[in-house]
Amino acid sequence: MIIKTSPLAPKKLKKLYEIDGVSISSVSCGIKKNLKDDLVLIKFDLPSQIYGVFTNSKTPGAPIVWNKSIIKYGRVSALIINSGNANVFNGKKGEEALKKIITALSLKLSINKKEIFMASTGVIGEALDYKKIIRQIPLLIENLKNSSQSWLKAANAIRTTDTFPKQHSEKIKLNTKENLYINGIAKGSGMIAPNMATMLSFIISNIQLEKNETKKKFDNIVEKTFNSITVDSDTSTSDMVLLILVKNKNRKSLVPKKKKEFFDKLESLMAYLSHLIVRDGEGASKFIKISINGARNYKDAKSLGMSIANSPLFKTAMAGSDSNWGRIIMALGKAGVAFDNSKVSIKFGNVLILKSGQNFLSKNIKKINSYLKKKEIEISVIVGEGKGSCSVWTCDLTKNYIRINTDYRS
Amino acid sequence: MIIKTSPLAPKKLKKLYEIDGVSISSVSCGIKKNLKDDLVLIKFDLPSQIYGVFTNSKTPGAPIVWNKSIIKYGRVSALIINSGNANVFNGKKGEEALKKIITALSLKLSINKKEIFMASTGVIGEALDYKKIIRQIPLLIENLKNSSQSWLKAANAIRTTDTFPKQHSEKIKLNTKENLYINGIAKGSGMIAPNMATMLSFIISNIQLEKNETKKKFDNIVEKTFNSITVDSDTSTSDMVLLILVKNKNRKSLVPKKKKEFFDKLESLMAYLSHLIVRDGEGASKFIKISINGARNYKDAKSLGMSIANSPLFKTAMAGSDSNWGRIIMALGKAGVAFDNSKVSIKFGNVLILKSGQNFLSKNIKKINSYLKKKEIEISVIVGEGKGSCSVWTCDLTKNYIRINTDYRS
Repeated sequence: MIIKTSPLAPKKLKKLYEIDGVSISSVSCGIKKNLKDDLVLIKFDLPSQIYGVFTNSKTPGAPIVWNKSIIKYGRVSALIINSGNANVFNGKKGEEALKKIITALSLKLSINKKEIFMASTGVIGEALDYKKIIRQIPLLIENLKNSSQSWLKAANAIRTTDTFPKQHSEKIKLNTKENLYINGIAKGSGMIAPNMATMLSFIISNIQLEKNETKKKFDNIVEKTFNSITVDSDTSTSDMVLLILVKNKNRKSLVPKKKKEFFDKLESLMAYLSHLIVRDGEGASKFIKISINGARNYKDAKSLGMSIANSPLFKTAMAGSDSNWGRIIMALGKAGVAFDNSKVSIKFGNVLILKSGQNFLSKNIKKINSYLKKKEIEISVIVGEGKGSCSVWTCDLTKNYIRINTDYRS
Repeated sequence: MIIKTSPLAPKKLKKLYEIDGVSISSVSCGIKKNLKDDLVLIKFDLPSQIYGVFTNSKTPGAPIVWNKSIIKYGRVSALIINSGNANVFNGKKGEEALKKIITALSLKLSINKKEIFMASTGVIGEALDYKKIIRQIPLLIENLKNSSQSWLKAANAIRTTDTFPKQHSEKIKLNTKENLYINGIAKGSGMIAPNMATMLSFIISNIQLEKNETKKKFDNIVEKTFNSITVDSDTSTSDMVLLILVKNKNRKSLVPKKKKEFFDKLESLMAYLSHLIVRDGEGASKFIKISINGARNYKDAKSLGMSIANSPLFKTAMAGSDSNWGRIIMALGKAGVAFDNSKVSIKFGNVLILKSGQNFLSKNIKKINSYLKKKEIEISVIVGEGKGSCSVWTCDLTKNYIRINTDYRS
């Protein structure tokens, strides 16, 4: 089966920056069958700050269990990632495989095991051949490099069903000589739903920040970006978003204005990367933003938004450029959130389809039909109950989603 | 677009019985465009006991709101059903349309409005042309009849995207002369998920029973049948299951054994009808039973079962006859239920694929691959935590689901 690059892929990806103190390499270790790169090492010269958000799955992979057990120490010296096998549901053997890899890397790099994070993505329930990985560690270390190209290679090596690599970067100018950078890579295209889905994202910056504040802001940004997207409502066993602040010896304290700029740019980078995952949603032909305003609170808004975004009937209507807003009403109704039906308004783009419960469809049908043919759609729902708002992102549900997932493995 | 009869449809439907004291008629009133019957009246000679379970949707249709307001009186003299328009989200106008129909019927039949139930199914958010319905009331009344044929006509008239009519019957022999009967009709094929989906079902019997006991047993059976099926995880705004016990003047008390037989047969009839809805699931090519055993309790079992049944990745794997049990693990993991991963066993049919966390796939791959090609699949999960168990039913997710729902309305 040939899968073409998603029609929603961006024309160009921004290059990543060279960040002092970090180096990267990617190799093929033979887990993926086609000799494509499937193993990545990201190495930090000095132990650096790390923040993470992990899948809520109750059948998490061995790497998730490991990372969760060491994240409390908050330090990272190396990050190893393999694709092609998720090392999930392999019981004791899965744990052992992970520990052998961590131990080997710890010895070769002379770093503490508790500073080595791992991520695995791919098939569930097949033994991970850790020997293939360990065998390549010397080559991985030898190839370590700090270049735009090595970032792109890594973004490619962590792909599974992704049709394009995902990366983005931001720059904050400090003065004529110095810049802060944020680099991010990500993967994911199916099994994508909030609370982490089959997605990995690694974001690395050379900023130095205070721990508690950073943790709080990072969690908040994850909620608004990676936890506000859905492709198919399925939640993966393996996913994580990591933020790493590469240690600088000449750490400087930042003026508040620059700190704010950093967090704004971090949010915009994470939003961009998470949207790339939706744009690569399996079979997607449309990128859909759903905005909820006027809900009683954020939680209600999120429930309503995700209920629409996860509804197969809504998603198939979008695939068919169909103005069947009854399916939006159905999805709002099943979210478990009570609201006064007579206050609800709905817009497709800027065009009203429902105003305070009154139907404007036939009046605006021409505009709406032409709007719905676009590749990028925005649906706004105004609930009329309060000030809770949110945006979530999804894609349509097409025959190609079925094709990809009916044929994926066997 | 031509939709063929579902390949999972039963070869033959059981005829319904003539039940004294009930008569039925169906006509075309012009809501459906193709002159097909779209309006049904079921009339009871004497006010009869009624029990109902209704959609949990927060955007319920006007008929749901009406029925919920009168079910407390527990009596029914007539039931009117239209297809083609769900009378949902039409605000005050929707309520008024309903009231005009109820009033007209109440006058023509000289019965109390509070004894008239209504059901509507079809498009959401389009005004219901109540005049079309009222105009046909005299003809509806004129055509009232008590025959197998009139039941089948009604089962056909309430269809929307259904590819075949759904009916079933049971008989309980009381003595050489007398029988108890249960007749049931149903509709539904998309927007099907628990807590009532786009499904209507009307079950009518001539048994006489005590109220509280019947209500409790009926609710319990609905939970195990109509609330244990899912086609696409979408919950409709309009759905209901009604049980009506036609009043007999010569009411008799039953021996406990016969009462038990009745409830057993009621459950088997409701199970059968609810499974017909899954068999007519939009685009379905496989009928799938998922059994969960050994969960901590029923609630956990149901969450785990429905999480598998609603997972698009599981459902597409089934469409592809793919033994990718990793998707079952993923679905178990996202259900929010904690369990010891090393105790889980999974079977496809009678063939073990996972035993206490150990992979048996490659050992049994041939048997499993041939089993998965069948049209009827059973997946069993043994959790190993307790005694909670349940069964839920679903179908696979195919390209035809997308085709049907991309093209349904526009």
